[in-house]
Amino acid sequence: MATLGLIEYADASPEVRAIYDDIMATRKTDWINNFWKALANDPTTLRRTWESIKQIMGPGAIDPLTKEMLYIAVSVTNQCPYCIASHTAAARKKGMTDAMFHELMAVVGMANETNRLVSGYQVEIDEQFKTR
Amino acid sequence: MATLGLIEYADASPEVRAIYDDIMATRKTDWINNFWKALANDPTTLRRTWESIKQIMGPGAIDPLTKEMLYIAVSVTNQCPYCIASHTAAARKKGMTDAMFHELMAVVGMANETNRLVSGYQVEIDEQFKTR
Amino acid sequence: MATLGLIEYADASPEVRAIYDDIMATRKTDWINNFWKALANDPTTLRRTWESIKQIMGPGAIDPLTKEMLYIAVSVTNQCPYCIASHTAAARKKGMTDAMFHELMAVVGMANETNRLVSGYQVEIDEQFKTR
Amino acid sequence: MATLGLIEYADASPEVRAIYDDIMATRKTDWINNFWKALANDPTTLRRTWESIKQIMGPGAIDPLTKEMLYIAVSVTNQCPYCIASHTAAARKKGMTDAMFHELMAVVGMANETNRLVSGYQVEIDEQFKTR
Amino acid sequence: MATLGLIEYADASPEVRAIYDDIMATRKTDWINNFWKALANDPTTLRRTWESIKQIMGPGAIDPLTKEMLYIAVSVTNQCPYCIASHTAAARKKGMTDAMFHELMAVVGMANETNRLVSGYQVEIDEQFKTR
Amino acid sequence: MATLGLIEYADASPEVRAIYDDIMATRKTDWINNFWKALANDPTTLRRTWESIKQIMGPGAIDPLTKEMLYIAVSVTNQCPYCIASHTAAARKKGMTDAMFHELMAVVGMANETNRLVSGYQVEIDEQFKTR
Repeated sequence: MATLGLIEYADASPEVRAIYDDIMATRKTDWINNFWKALANDPTTLRRTWESIKQIMGPGAIDPLTKEMLYIAVSVTNQCPYCIASHTAAARKKGMTDAMFHELMAVVGMANETNRLVSGYQVEIDEQFKTR
Repeated sequence: MATLGLIEYADASPEVRAIYDDIMATRKTDWINNFWKALANDPTTLRRTWESIKQIMGPGAIDPLTKEMLYIAVSVTNQCPYCIASHTAAARKKGMTDAMFHELMAVVGMANETNRLVSGYQVEIDEQFKTR
Repeated sequence: MATLGLIEYADASPEVRAIYDDIMATRKTDWINNFWKALANDPTTLRRTWESIKQIMGPGAIDPLTKEMLYIAVSVTNQCPYCIASHTAAARKKGMTDAMFHELMAVVGMANETNRLVSGYQVEIDEQFKTR
Repeated sequence: MATLGLIEYADASPEVRAIYDDIMATRKTDWINNFWKALANDPTTLRRTWESIKQIMGPGAIDPLTKEMLYIAVSVTNQCPYCIASHTAAARKKGMTDAMFHELMAVVGMANETNRLVSGYQVEIDEQFKTR
Repeated sequence: MATLGLIEYADASPEVRAIYDDIMATRKTDWINNFWKALANDPTTLRRTWESIKQIMGPGAIDPLTKEMLYIAVSVTNQCPYCIASHTAAARKKGMTDAMFHELMAVVGMANETNRLVSGYQVEIDEQFKTR
Repeated sequence: MATLGLIEYADASPEVRAIYDDIMATRKTDWINNFWKALANDPTTLRRTWESIKQIMGPGAIDPLTKEMLYIAVSVTNQCPYCIASHTAAARKKGMTDAMFHELMAVVGMANETNRLVSGYQVEIDEQFKTR
């Protein structure tokens, strides 16, 4: 049975190394986390995912810290332990304080609760909300 | 078979009316959306939910607009049409621009994608991320 | 492009009719709901699903009404509108009162909230809970 | 990077200790599980969550054991390991037998299956079910 | 309040039109479905999403029809009505027969059931499965 | 508090042993994985689940390897670590290559992403897709 390991920098192809270098430079860090080392088994997906993440998570109309908190909100809702750990660390690094983390958790918890109250009570969309 | 309707202001008990009044005053609006009218069938849950929402969604370490975007991130992940419509409207009212909405969607979509790449590749948590 | 319609009793094969008859007799009703009419396009799945449902949802160590409420809890969590509507109707028929429905919704909402607080705070399982 | 630990009773503020005392008194137990020790980093959420849980999970139109089983149904559907472990232990303590646990699992499994058959076959809601 | 409409070909910018043209040419069809018309409000996401979909869903180690069925499996699990409808139509066009659809639904339903039996029974991973 | 262990072959009842024997014969293997050993605490669910799995996962209009990949797609979407590990091993055994695994992951990731773009943009179903 085949097994996919984590691709370390020393063992990586030049193509993968170039992506690792860009990840470290963009994030101003000197190490690569396991997610990328696992994806590196498939350089096509590694490249596509990194290019997308780089484009999406950078500064824009929404600041990078808020984007990390949005990432946490999704990861917590989906119950993905790795994603929660890695993006919480990333948000901390970008300035998320304890107070912000606590409010983030409160919003995410409440949203998951009211999402179910809405569907359980079979609430229909108000005319006033029929827009995007 | 019993049927739960939407409780209109005119038909509401004084207890429910007081909550409706507080919702409208807090939100500076003159109408009540269906979610609350449905919950009003159970004044205990109506009161608890409104008190929690009011406490959580107000200003704090995270601003109200960002909280609405976090709410949307959860609701989109859970695929709750009512919640998406109502909180998108609320975020618009609080200043979410088209550009912000587009970036919000991009982050939520990407987080949902990488959450699955992480679990599918069975990625283990890096030692560096083992914190909260 | 092929299209799968709903298989009405009058158009059903003897095999499907026999299952429809058993559904109506077991449920003491004179009509078949759309779920079964859709599944009837695949008699194998229709039979397997009905036999399983019949075995699982009947009286046992847990009473049928509680089982319907468990079904609603799952369906609300998964945001399945059809399942919520059909099992709420079934629970009503088996005696679920408004008060029970309200408490059911409160539990389901709260469980969905605390499930996320647990994962967001990355809470580890207490030794005392390591059992089944 | 900030790290949130578990707040032990000995290290807790008077406000948090009072909540811990109420949890232990209400549950007739002499220890606090990790969920509350983690939430104690944010006394506001600790208080709100405990007050809600205490109100919701107590006796009412639905008995406390059934409420624990509903909690398990949600937690299993959401795949939350901590929640499954803690609420299974709680349900055991309140009298859930092996036979009840087995039926609970059977219902939860089946509901998750038919939820998907319904959406995959794109089944529309019967007129008879259009109520709450 | 801002509202995002569907961007029709006639109203699209040259950049968006070029993507629409590529979608229609790649799919050998003469119309654009609503998903792309909605994304066109954000040409950056439209381009990124289309480029990714085009790369991923084409022929490779897995054939295009199987990929459509995988897409359906995910969409049914997530309860996304639009995605189920559009990818079922796409799979039909690529050759999915009624028999294949029925088996697909059976597998998806069963997987959703056993996923929950596994978590509810708190099953630990066998040593033999600890590989990728 | 009761605890459910794993039922080993040596400790199993004749009824459970017969099912274990059928599992091993059908799968051409000489061991039983933990999922079945856990379910064996409830012979009724063990039998029903095995009979269903055996019927569904065998050859038919869709080949067994594709069925395993569909199972992985669901399990990854639901974030079920045991299910991902066991069905990835099963798919490997049936011939899933690294290239196939990589494409499978890419499709599952992308589907989870676009499922959310669809719901976030509140895309309505095209008339052309209103079929099954």
